[in-house]
Amino acid sequence: MASESGKLWGGRFVGAVDPIMEKFNSSIAYDRHLWEVDVQGSKAYSRGLEKAGLLTKAEMDQILHGLDKVAEEWAQGTFKLSPNDEDIHTANERRLKELIGETAGKLHTGRSRNDQVVTDLRLWMRQNCSKLSALLWELIRTMVDRAEAERDVLFPGYTHLQRAQPTGWSHWILSGAIAGNPLGVDRELLQAELNFGAITLNSMDATSERDFVAEFLFWASLCMTHLSRMAEDLILYGTKEFGFVQLSDAYSTGSSLMPQKKNPDSLELIRSKAGRVFGRCAGLLMTLKGLPSTYNKDLQEDKEAVFEVSDTMSAVLQVATGVISTLQIHRENMARALSPDMLATDLAYYLVRKGMPFRQAHEASGKAVFMAETKGVALNQLSLKELQTISPLFSGDVSHVWDYGHSVEQYAALGGTARASVDWQIGQVRALLRAQQA
Amino acid sequence: MASESGKLWGGRFVGAVDPIMEKFNSSIAYDRHLWEVDVQGSKAYSRGLEKAGLLTKAEMDQILHGLDKVAEEWAQGTFKLSPNDEDIHTANERRLKELIGETAGKLHTGRSRNDQVVTDLRLWMRQNCSKLSALLWELIRTMVDRAEAERDVLFPGYTHLQRAQPTGWSHWILSGAIAGNPLGVDRELLQAELNFGAITLNSMDATSERDFVAEFLFWASLCMTHLSRMAEDLILYGTKEFGFVQLSDAYSTGSSLMPQKKNPDSLELIRSKAGRVFGRCAGLLMTLKGLPSTYNKDLQEDKEAVFEVSDTMSAVLQVATGVISTLQIHRENMARALSPDMLATDLAYYLVRKGMPFRQAHEASGKAVFMAETKGVALNQLSLKELQTISPLFSGDVSHVWDYGHSVEQYAALGGTARASVDWQIGQVRALLRAQQA
Amino acid sequence: MASESGKLWGGRFVGAVDPIMEKFNSSIAYDRHLWEVDVQGSKAYSRGLEKAGLLTKAEMDQILHGLDKVAEEWAQGTFKLSPNDEDIHTANERRLKELIGETAGKLHTGRSRNDQVVTDLRLWMRQNCSKLSALLWELIRTMVDRAEAERDVLFPGYTHLQRAQPTGWSHWILSGAIAGNPLGVDRELLQAELNFGAITLNSMDATSERDFVAEFLFWASLCMTHLSRMAEDLILYGTKEFGFVQLSDAYSTGSSLMPQKKNPDSLELIRSKAGRVFGRCAGLLMTLKGLPSTYNKDLQEDKEAVFEVSDTMSAVLQVATGVISTLQIHRENMARALSPDMLATDLAYYLVRKGMPFRQAHEASGKAVFMAETKGVALNQLSLKELQTISPLFSGDVSHVWDYGHSVEQYAALGGTARASVDWQIGQVRALLRAQQA
Amino acid sequence: MASESGKLWGGRFVGAVDPIMEKFNSSIAYDRHLWEVDVQGSKAYSRGLEKAGLLTKAEMDQILHGLDKVAEEWAQGTFKLSPNDEDIHTANERRLKELIGETAGKLHTGRSRNDQVVTDLRLWMRQNCSKLSALLWELIRTMVDRAEAERDVLFPGYTHLQRAQPTGWSHWILSGAIAGNPLGVDRELLQAELNFGAITLNSMDATSERDFVAEFLFWASLCMTHLSRMAEDLILYGTKEFGFVQLSDAYSTGSSLMPQKKNPDSLELIRSKAGRVFGRCAGLLMTLKGLPSTYNKDLQEDKEAVFEVSDTMSAVLQVATGVISTLQIHRENMARALSPDMLATDLAYYLVRKGMPFRQAHEASGKAVFMAETKGVALNQLSLKELQTISPLFSGDVSHVWDYGHSVEQYAALGGTARASVDWQIGQVRALLRAQQA
Repeated sequence: MASESGKLWGGRFVGAVDPIMEKFNSSIAYDRHLWEVDVQGSKAYSRGLEKAGLLTKAEMDQILHGLDKVAEEWAQGTFKLSPNDEDIHTANERRLKELIGETAGKLHTGRSRNDQVVTDLRLWMRQNCSKLSALLWELIRTMVDRAEAERDVLFPGYTHLQRAQPTGWSHWILSGAIAGNPLGVDRELLQAELNFGAITLNSMDATSERDFVAEFLFWASLCMTHLSRMAEDLILYGTKEFGFVQLSDAYSTGSSLMPQKKNPDSLELIRSKAGRVFGRCAGLLMTLKGLPSTYNKDLQEDKEAVFEVSDTMSAVLQVATGVISTLQIHRENMARALSPDMLATDLAYYLVRKGMPFRQAHEASGKAVFMAETKGVALNQLSLKELQTISPLFSGDVSHVWDYGHSVEQYAALGGTARASVDWQIGQVRALLRAQQA
Repeated sequence: MASESGKLWGGRFVGAVDPIMEKFNSSIAYDRHLWEVDVQGSKAYSRGLEKAGLLTKAEMDQILHGLDKVAEEWAQGTFKLSPNDEDIHTANERRLKELIGETAGKLHTGRSRNDQVVTDLRLWMRQNCSKLSALLWELIRTMVDRAEAERDVLFPGYTHLQRAQPTGWSHWILSGAIAGNPLGVDRELLQAELNFGAITLNSMDATSERDFVAEFLFWASLCMTHLSRMAEDLILYGTKEFGFVQLSDAYSTGSSLMPQKKNPDSLELIRSKAGRVFGRCAGLLMTLKGLPSTYNKDLQEDKEAVFEVSDTMSAVLQVATGVISTLQIHRENMARALSPDMLATDLAYYLVRKGMPFRQAHEASGKAVFMAETKGVALNQLSLKELQTISPLFSGDVSHVWDYGHSVEQYAALGGTARASVDWQIGQVRALLRAQQA
Repeated sequence: MASESGKLWGGRFVGAVDPIMEKFNSSIAYDRHLWEVDVQGSKAYSRGLEKAGLLTKAEMDQILHGLDKVAEEWAQGTFKLSPNDEDIHTANERRLKELIGETAGKLHTGRSRNDQVVTDLRLWMRQNCSKLSALLWELIRTMVDRAEAERDVLFPGYTHLQRAQPTGWSHWILSGAIAGNPLGVDRELLQAELNFGAITLNSMDATSERDFVAEFLFWASLCMTHLSRMAEDLILYGTKEFGFVQLSDAYSTGSSLMPQKKNPDSLELIRSKAGRVFGRCAGLLMTLKGLPSTYNKDLQEDKEAVFEVSDTMSAVLQVATGVISTLQIHRENMARALSPDMLATDLAYYLVRKGMPFRQAHEASGKAVFMAETKGVALNQLSLKELQTISPLFSGDVSHVWDYGHSVEQYAALGGTARASVDWQIGQVRALLRAQQA
Repeated sequence: MASESGKLWGGRFVGAVDPIMEKFNSSIAYDRHLWEVDVQGSKAYSRGLEKAGLLTKAEMDQILHGLDKVAEEWAQGTFKLSPNDEDIHTANERRLKELIGETAGKLHTGRSRNDQVVTDLRLWMRQNCSKLSALLWELIRTMVDRAEAERDVLFPGYTHLQRAQPTGWSHWILSGAIAGNPLGVDRELLQAELNFGAITLNSMDATSERDFVAEFLFWASLCMTHLSRMAEDLILYGTKEFGFVQLSDAYSTGSSLMPQKKNPDSLELIRSKAGRVFGRCAGLLMTLKGLPSTYNKDLQEDKEAVFEVSDTMSAVLQVATGVISTLQIHRENMARALSPDMLATDLAYYLVRKGMPFRQAHEASGKAVFMAETKGVALNQLSLKELQTISPLFSGDVSHVWDYGHSVEQYAALGGTARASVDWQIGQVRALLRAQQA
């Protein structure tokens, strides 16, 4: 190859190899995470070589035995990296050669390091997605357990952060659990892709595409977006002003300055990680953009992204499970936050049931709200006479409207907030949990 | 409601409604795209109201007839927007009322605009994803046709943009077609989600989550990433330096300054759109991050993103199909670019077949490359004697190594670049195309 | 040039020019915004050509006159685009030729369209940044006016959304105004870059780099991030639970379903636009990533991003100004939200002033908070005796601690929340406003 | 505070503190980088406390001495972290207390940890930006040195990756050096902000805003975008097909499979890091979006982003400097790539100088290109007679057009590629370098 003429102009001194370049190029600092799957992959590959007649049975056995020894050293923490081990693949092969001699050199026959890298990463992700999946299901199970136990609690449903209609607290919990659910399905897809049942169709595409990485990072981003929203809700519900929930001390921290403070750090960190995880997804896609096909070293960026996101997801899912399972709710504050104006829609429906088109009924109910506001009374304190100045359809039975529990029970359609619907949702999610365990 | 006290300090004059706010709030400029699905959704909803006893049969018929009239006006371009129509839903209902009177007011009974918005968008995306899917399959079909017709052409395979090994041109084409394929599968998933066979499990989650939008935008981003890489390859292959392909005039433009130029604008635009599409995906996720649950007006950002990305994908897929179907290849340049050093791996394999471990064979072959470079001759011009100074395993049959076609035929494993493997790939993709049409 | 052999395999019919490609390639739909600066740039360029002896004085006058006519047609809405006008530059030159004949063909001597595109965009941005700057200063002025008028209002300061310490309401307002300020400075930088006082140093870099676009998009993203946070605060402060502020009707909208609702749509839209604007910034950077130097058609993506972001910023800044100038504050709710536990830090400082190290004082105050909580009384209702069980340093003067106004006045250091410091902040921002007007 | 009732439903066992939460919350793993600036900040703060009468002179001396001891332990690697040290601030204060006793508890009087965090990070960034700046200037200096030494080398200038016009190689180098320059200016701005000459105007804003972090991450993103484009150019120029440059072995790596390969890993890694760095910028902005004002734990995400990006930039700038300083150029290949059709613009200018309007001249030159292509000869091999069939303005002196050096020398306007202009550019950048050193 080209001989090295040394530096031509300027720059730092540069010898045969620039040590900064060496470090810049090396991936051993993070791809050592792959030691186990690298051994696993090499063992499978050596069996393939034997079958293809490129290794004798004895050579294969020697290699398999050597690789087991390598794995043992990693597992026991006795594997010693040498300064020339630029990645986990060269490290393992270098050690194998020390252990079994020249036969080790036959292991790499007919495979490129690029194949090896991508196979190892797929294997690692298969293992890891399975762990993350278990953590996600644990979170969902915790939410369902909680939803079931607190089915009788009502609190204000919000849209635009304005109090909208009375809602079951369990309905809120399940809105999160259900948001979690498609994610679980998504992961299964990924796992299906990773079980290697299917053969990669094209060798160029196989070393070049990182769809499985991009999709994992996007799954994590979308999952974190949901969790950031759940965290936002709980942070708000935990303020003095809302006062609906109280975080366990196990998930709060105090202030270094203000003795009375108890801060929801756990939830804030969950919310913040949505940015970090998405940033990794964005970074990978930018790295892939416009890259010539087949392998380019740019693709080395995939691994740190996957490792960091996987660690983050693992911590987030466990902390979220802990937060949900230890959260205290303040039923009396939830009940106190329900106010008659939240039944204005029910008041409109009352008129609809008496035959008034909804648009008119909505307007009539709006007038009642305005009348109550003007008079400085609650909506349910308007007299029948006063209501009748708005519409003659109001009669004595309007008093039945002013019952929060009754209001909630109207929404019994599947997906609604009525007790029966919530029970049905719980059943649906439990069925998923059972299907998952089977 | 609260009376308006006008401006308190500074600022522009503000009357009852700030006209800039009105425009800022209005979505009619872009959600008019939804006119058809909005009518479709309202027709279905009025049937539901009748079934629930909230509309009489006669009222339902009146509404259905009126909605058909509204749709007709849109289709014929005679629908007139009024300045108060802030979105497509109010516009259609306003017009319905003009056409059929007060009964129109009953249509909105028991549904919120937030439900309507999300239902309309799901319906629109179902239609639209189906169109995009057809365009994607058309691109894949074109690629497979081309791959089949040009199976005999060899050219250099590259990794790191360095010439690596002789490769079938069709193998490169299929690497793109196959990259397209999982995307198709992804889309089917989306479509499955959108066929509304499944009931939304939770009413809070239903108006609040935009997973189907985020997933569509991510599908588009990942698809564009692949296309940006294919575009990059073709731009390179079309340079004077590579000279492998020539873009049709239909997809090139001249220079305003330099008469000799013919620029691959079509491919550059495809490459550039990866940024735009991903930007929309990133924007939506950022908008969703930390948003309180249920509906917030922030969610209005979903539609422009979907419409712009859908338009972009539609144009990109059609232009890409046109580019691929009219591209000329320069076989002689492709052949000329193959050089004996690209067979260095084959030279190593030759030694492996004679019993040398691959690592040693790789080193021996590297020595041969270096010897040829030093002597200033091509690798296949080294004499047998010279090769034997490197390894005594070299003998007369080494001359068989220097055949590009033979080299390619070695990679007959599924997914490889050998003729048989390429045929198999073509068969696999054709099977997908047939399955798609069925 | 290469003759067109038509389609080879598959694909739609393709004539001499694919009409979809033509539309894909065309930028006239959005770059028509540049008509004015394009004429302005061409007028300057024709003067340069005359100076260089490439146009006679008479030819220059003819061109200048013709360009004025072109501009007049645009201004009066009578300019007619022809189907072949692919961008604003060809449209204007085509029309110029119709108006003045062949001399028009001399205008393009020695400049490339790429130069023209980038010059036009710089000119347009100079104009436009100046308008956005004025809107930003108007927002800042409104905030300062308001801060000055409401200097006497106290409310809870929050960290982690937990009530922290009593704070001046004006202090909160100014925290936003001041966050706006560096942005103004940033813009001035941009303007400085755009005043073309400096000569572009390198012709390759000049057509190729889009730093001025990227920096504008990032300025907008950062500005929107600040505004999204201000919007979030105001949305929270406007909930029933906080009840600190009430949005003017001019910036709220009702619910289609729930008569009692008044939603802060203006603030939610402001918050949401942070995603859109950042998405454009992200998209442009991705488009630029790895692009070969000099002009590539990919760069055409810059304009729509700039136009959309500029329109968005213009609307957001005006709506934000309107919101702030018409917002009502509920002083009594703000006052009611102050609670004695927010003075726990002051209680610790009381002990510090008596000589106790802060860490111990913090712990002592924490004990007092716990004691009050346990006894179910407010912190200021603990008796002196009770306090003395925690520390003998407590004496009668501890009662002075329980005064919110006094607490706030302690923070008189520059930047603090004391009246004098707030006055100083107002003065600083007013000075910036004056400097801006000068 | 609230007593802990333990887990209510499901979830893992949770004691007083969930160990996963503790780890999730802890920042010591990365903020230990801040040890030096944390000590520096605390020393300054204790001087402030003494001045304010909150520490006696003796106490201050005791604290200063203790802090020096803490710093010494960090510097010598003997500082021992305890399991309860959740961040660098608590670690240092805990150790200080062990060293000097209760007086240590006075150090935190009147400052919050949030202040301390943001101050430390600003101090660290001031130091670090200064280091990065030096590396950036070193890269620029290397490029200018090189540009100066190779001023006589011509090669093809490209637009759209199509050969456009003959260009000075130094002109290309300087297009990169100049792109680097505004970045340097940007950094100075940042440094100006960080020199703390100005007082933070508002205490809420001070702990809450992270503009200085966002701007640093954006500077890095934009800088990396430029470097990714320079890397892309050099990767292309280094292919067998272009053959203009050859990377030093110090910045290349071989293939594990193909003995003849030498891959430009250094440049590919530089190109790829644009994604990573931008991902961090995107992540931070998403984390900031919609965050309530003042301190929230979400802001803890800032530090790892800054540390990682700073390390990446440091490596990238050094490797880029090494690559540029050791790169070999192949002058003969550069010269060979120049072809007469690249002078077609000059041919048009020849006609312009004879009085033909540019648009006509452009067309005439285009005809000549087409004629040469059709006849299968080079553009400069058309006879005068043949040229005169296109325009009678052609005469014998047209032969002067066919001189690449002469063509380049035409572009002598400032910023052009002529020798004089390149010299001027070199002078401009050298002046910046001198200004920087002063």
